[in-house]
Amino acid sequence: MTIYDQLLQFTLFQGMSRADLMEVVTHTKFGFSKLAQKKYLVKEGDSCTHLIFLTHGTLQCETQSDDHSCRVIETIKAPYIIQPNRIFGIAQRYSTTFKAATPCNLISIDKQEVLLLLETQLVFRLNMLNMMATDSQRLRHHAWRSAPRNLRERLTRFFFSRCLYPAGPKTFHILMQQIADELNDSRLDISHALNDMQRDHLLTLHRGRIEIPLLERLVM
Amino acid sequence: MTIYDQLLQFTLFQGMSRADLMEVVTHTKFGFSKLAQKKYLVKEGDSCTHLIFLTHGTLQCETQSDDHSCRVIETIKAPYIIQPNRIFGIAQRYSTTFKAATPCNLISIDKQEVLLLLETQLVFRLNMLNMMATDSQRLRHHAWRSAPRNLRERLTRFFFSRCLYPAGPKTFHILMQQIADELNDSRLDISHALNDMQRDHLLTLHRGRIEIPLLERLVM
Repeated sequence: MTIYDQLLQFTLFQGMSRADLMEVVTHTKFGFSKLAQKKYLVKEGDSCTHLIFLTHGTLQCETQSDDHSCRVIETIKAPYIIQPNRIFGIAQRYSTTFKAATPCNLISIDKQEVLLLLETQLVFRLNMLNMMATDSQRLRHHAWRSAPRNLRERLTRFFFSRCLYPAGPKTFHILMQQIADELNDSRLDISHALNDMQRDHLLTLHRGRIEIPLLERLVM
Repeated sequence: MTIYDQLLQFTLFQGMSRADLMEVVTHTKFGFSKLAQKKYLVKEGDSCTHLIFLTHGTLQCETQSDDHSCRVIETIKAPYIIQPNRIFGIAQRYSTTFKAATPCNLISIDKQEVLLLLETQLVFRLNMLNMMATDSQRLRHHAWRSAPRNLRERLTRFFFSRCLYPAGPKTFHILMQQIADELNDSRLDISHALNDMQRDHLLTLHRGRIEIPLLERLVM
């Protein structure tokens, strides 16, 4: 795949003319790298100084709650941009740890080069602003949705709200008591609802761990 | 107050040099307007085609949930920017209705002019990106906070998550049963917790309405 086609996989470059892309490719310093399986790409708390594009391969991402009572592991496939909303704003550090689940290919662009692209490329600038605005619009809307009608819906929202990507396999390291505390319910009710979901093949329960093979199936 | 000082009240223009501000003031088409008390500024669903800056006065803002079961009225004082995250992204419409609570002064900038500022003014561009990134970082972090320890904390989070501005007076038009459904608790428990908060002078209860004189006091 050419560098053009690799970049065009990502929303940030979509809508650019061939001429603009040519200029970008000519004038931007891209970093190309490979990451061997099981190697870390970034860790939670690392400073976010680059935009990193996963162009090939699969990453394992791990996010945990502030009090470490819940830890979520996700599997994310290329094309994917690593936390683009962390290169600006008040918290310019990754909030998630990313590790190669398979050998990965990556393109990275230093923040200085990102700033240059934002200055010179109208489409890139609009794509970045639209991406960030959409993210904040979606998140702000969450509180205004209709209340969940039952415990299964509550659990589904709980799982979705803690995932970076709203589909694919997820592993939750969490105790049922902790879910009960979060959802204001009893451990017994949570256990019943989760066992019902296990019977429907939506997830499997283990000691302190819940495996969800495909998150998107929870809302089908 | 000069136009310089008026603009410098807003994050989007902060950090600009006098020379840059001079250029902005000279080359940008600003709309200046006054809004009489009780007149509407924008309504929920109106297309967002301008950045609107409240430079003087007080607005009343009303937001409601998708199913109309909850309606929140807030009072917001100048300086304030009207939903700046709605001029880009997937939903370029206001999600809240804004009405003048006192006579108001406003400055508005058309989206075309905003795009020009984003192109020509580095500081404005960085301020916009930082503002949007910070918004999305804060909202994404919500799910990862420690679980609320009691019903009062749950109620406090409920109120905060539905407000545009995290301080000042708020009126919630909502039935206790609806809060119970949202928080997965019984109407009786909600009633007890709200009555406790009323005794502590944090809010007053009316039929289908909760008045919170100062939202920030709920977390003190």
